[in-house]
Order: sequence, then structure tokens, then C-alpha cells
Amino acid sequence: MKTRIQTMLSAHPQPQSLFDQDTLAECIAACMECAQICGACADACLAETEHLTHLLRCIRMNLDCADVCAATGRILSRLTSPDQTMLRAQLQACMTACKACGDECERHGTEMNMQHCTVCAESCRQCESACAALLGRLSESADNSRAAVHPY
Amino acid sequence: MKTRIQTMLSAHPQPQSLFDQDTLAECIAACMECAQICGACADACLAETEHLTHLLRCIRMNLDCADVCAATGRILSRLTSPDQTMLRAQLQACMTACKACGDECERHGTEMNMQHCTVCAESCRQCESACAALLGRLSESADNSRAAVHPY
Amino acid sequence: MKTRIQTMLSAHPQPQSLFDQDTLAECIAACMECAQICGACADACLAETEHLTHLLRCIRMNLDCADVCAATGRILSRLTSPDQTMLRAQLQACMTACKACGDECERHGTEMNMQHCTVCAESCRQCESACAALLGRLSESADNSRAAVHPY
Amino acid sequence: MKTRIQTMLSAHPQPQSLFDQDTLAECIAACMECAQICGACADACLAETEHLTHLLRCIRMNLDCADVCAATGRILSRLTSPDQTMLRAQLQACMTACKACGDECERHGTEMNMQHCTVCAESCRQCESACAALLGRLSESADNSRAAVHPY
Repeated sequence: MKTRIQTMLSAHPQPQSLFDQDTLAECIAACMECAQICGACADACLAETEHLTHLLRCIRMNLDCADVCAATGRILSRLTSPDQTMLRAQLQACMTACKACGDECERHGTEMNMQHCTVCAESCRQCESACAALLGRLSESADNSRAAVHPY
Repeated sequence: MKTRIQTMLSAHPQPQSLFDQDTLAECIAACMECAQICGACADACLAETEHLTHLLRCIRMNLDCADVCAATGRILSRLTSPDQTMLRAQLQACMTACKACGDECERHGTEMNMQHCTVCAESCRQCESACAALLGRLSESADNSRAAVHPY
Repeated sequence: MKTRIQTMLSAHPQPQSLFDQDTLAECIAACMECAQICGACADACLAETEHLTHLLRCIRMNLDCADVCAATGRILSRLTSPDQTMLRAQLQACMTACKACGDECERHGTEMNMQHCTVCAESCRQCESACAALLGRLSESADNSRAAVHPY
Repeated sequence: MKTRIQTMLSAHPQPQSLFDQDTLAECIAACMECAQICGACADACLAETEHLTHLLRCIRMNLDCADVCAATGRILSRLTSPDQTMLRAQLQACMTACKACGDECERHGTEMNMQHCTVCAESCRQCESACAALLGRLSESADNSRAAVHPY
């Protein structure tokens, strides 16, 4: 069954051809979810009153990653006149944020047994991987990207 | 099976008691989805080159609704020290935005047969209804909310 | 000298008549600033390692207020086809958030001598007041707002 | 006279040493302003009913650039435990978005005499340049960044 994101992509009057729809839908969903989960993890860390001083960097990574993922999800939801150079830089920023936040959260999940960090690390890994899948598509056509984007 | 949002709510070290977890999880998911769908609908409307002049108000409603839903989803994802007065105002703003955007999109879905607007209207209705469900919980305890929030 | 926000409002091809330009420009500037200052205050509170447990509610208010102000600033920056009912609800949500965050920050500024909270409280008061000024304009025309917005 | 952003940076209990405060304050201000101006330019373009079909790419660039700048401004406002790798990727994404949007807007400002695009291009150039100034600081210390960020 199609998700609502997939249905929207199918309903677009001028579907783009940079990405196949399922890979794109998956990445948008992963970005939106990671934005929400990172925000929730920041709040959960804040409520870990006993361990709070060990979690300051984690909270900061969570908040940053939430912001980058939210921006990436919004940008990927637009199909009109994509700019490959911009998409590439945004996907790289999102992967970098997800990597940093995922590493930090994984450590707290493992060493301090914090389940919210474990869940957040999973969401970060999934988003990083979904962004990498899209980036792979763009890199293949890196050399002619500006020409393709500005055909006029 | 639990969604990741539900798992995060369960993993919070200090779960709040304002809302039951499933109703809250549903509303967060609806806000996040509506933010994404509205952003996608704005872009799809922009690509309706023949009908674009009829869709300017729709695009504006879409962009506004996306912003309000995104903010609401972020706020509801925080469980620490909630302020009921603020939550109530935010839920009302979100319902108002979803109502206005849902009405506008429904009209284009019906009259102009635009599928992206139909899908967007569904997402707006669902988010409006999920916010109303949470707001109902808050209104019940409206009279003593400030006391409850500031017990110190 | 005009700010860039004012210049943009003057350059709009279809200026709206709901608000006078200077009052609107001031409110947009106040929302954008309050969003930034609240985010910075949340981070400064997080670095108050000795007092951190007393600042959890403040951090939460800061993050919420930043989200609401950012959404309000984006929405007010759009002049095309405004919906007065939606604008009114959003301005009220923004005022409520600024009031709650401003009260919380003012208390920490006064009682704990935290300068970042004092500055944040000032920004919240200014934003609340700027939103109230716009809301006053809308309320005057409350009874005929739907007719004015949907003249077709 | 100090801006409120500068005052907040000075009031932080644990100021960071990655950037000097004035350069950082300038970049935060430029990001926040560019986010607002790009959002306003998207709306102004939408109201250019005669030229709308020539402005679709511009609107898309505006919306993307607004999202990236807003995220960058939020991230730079946090001083706690910065991750240089993440900051670098985000600054690069922001510069790329500002370059693409600035080029597009400049073209419409020059060729079509659209003042809102001219103002937007100026804001994009300023933000791109402010991000480049910060990035220059990070790149100097690129080789030892991971060690510096994770000293434990």
C-alpha cells in the first residue's frame, strides 16, 4: 500500500527524473522521522536529571540534527526545478549531522543503556543511509549537473 | 506494532500525564505528515502551470499550514514541563490553519480534480481532528491549568 | 533608513492592506529576533551546569517559543491572500508563547541573575507587544473577516 | 552599540573559541535575515502574476534557501559542544544555497527589473560571504578537528 508521501509524489503534475519515486519517498520519510525523533531525544535527555551533565553534547547534536533533517525533508519534498549542486550539499550536510548524532546517541544507548538514545541512533542511521542512496544518484551525473539543471 | 514515535514516548524518563500516549503519538504523526504534505502540495500547485493563477491562495495556505504543523509537531514532541496555556493556543492555531488549508485544497480537489489537493485536504482534516482530540483533553482541565503547570 | 524587511515589503507587487507596513515590519523583525534569542537562551541555560536542574522548564519554554516565533515570522512575511482567522490564531499562539517564556526567563534573570535570561525576556516582551499591535488591527475587523478574505 | 545577538553571545556561560564573537554574530544575523528575505521574495514572486511562469525556479530556490539559512542560523546560535565536521558541512550547504538563490534572483533583478529579487540577491550574497568567513576559521583547523571536538 502506498504511503501518503508516495501518493503525493505520484500526483505531482511534473514529476522529476533525478530520483526514482520510491527512493525519494523513503528519504523524505526518513528525514521527517529523524527530525521528530531527534527533537524527542533532546527532550528525553533533558529529563535524565541524574545523567544530564553527560548528555549536554547529545542534546546539542539532537537539536542540530533535527534542524538539518527538517530542512532536508522540506527541500526534498519540492520537485520543481531542482538544483543538483544544492541538493548534493544539503544531502551531505544531512548525512554528516545524522552520522555525528547517531554516533553520540549510540554510545549513550550502549554505555548508559538509554533506550531513547538507541531509538534515536537507529533513526539517524536510517536517515543517513537514505540520504546516501539519493546522493549516489546525483553523484553519477555530477559532471553534467549544471548543464542539466539550467538547460535554458 | 509500535511506531518509532510511540517507542520514543514510552522511553521518556519522565512521561507526562496530560495526554494518553497513543493520542499524543497520533497527533505528532499527523502534524509531521501534514507539514510534509502541505509543502509538497505547494510545490505541486506551482507546477500546475495552466491553473497557477487560481492556486495562489492555495499555495499560500499550504506554506502557512506547513509552518504551523511543523512547529506544533516539534512542540508536542517535548514532554518536559508542559505549559497548558501555550499548548492550547498552539493546538488552536494548528486546527485553524488545517481548517483553512483543508477547505481550500478540498475545493480544488473537487472542482478542478487536482489529486494532490485531495490528498492534502485529507491530511489537513486528519491533523485538525488529531489536534482537536488533544485540545479536548486540555479543555477539561482548563480552570486549574495554571496551578497545575506552576506548582512551585 | 529602511531595514531590508521594510524594503522587501515596499517592493511587493501586491501589497496587502491589513496592516500598515511599519507595524508589520516591526513584528516580523521581532519574531525573527525572538526565535534566534530563545534558541540561544536554551543553549546558554544548557551550559549553566551548576543551575541546570532549575532551568529545565526554561529550556523547554525557550525551544517552544523559538518554534512558534519562527513560524509566525515566516507566515507574516507572506502578503499574498492572507486569511485573517489563521493570522489571528497564529498571533495569539505567538503572544501566549512569548508571555510564558518571558515570565520564566524574567524570573531567572531577576532571582538568579542570569543575563541571557534577562535579554531573552526583553526579546519575548517586545515580540509579544509587536504581535498584540498587529492583532489589534485584525480584531477591529473581526466581524467581517471571512467575507473580506473570501470575496469570491 | 551591541546588537541583541552579540549581547547573548557575551552572556553565554561557556563561550566557545571556534569563532570570534563578532564574526559569529554577523553570520547568525545574516542567516536569520536571509531566511526571512527569501521567504518574502518567494511570496513577492508569487504575486508577479504576469511573469509568474518565469519565476517558478526562483520561488523554489527562495524556499530552499530560506530553509537552509533558518537551520544554519539555529545551529550557529548554539555554542555548547560544537562539532566542527557538522558545522563545516552545514556552512557549505548554506553557501551553496545562497549562491544558487543569489544567482537566480540577481538575474531577475537585472533582466526583469524586479526589486524584490535585487534585495534578495543582496541578502544571499551577504549570507554566503558571512558563512565563508566562518568556514575559513574552521578550515584552518581542519586537520585536527575531530581530535579537538572529541577530546574524551
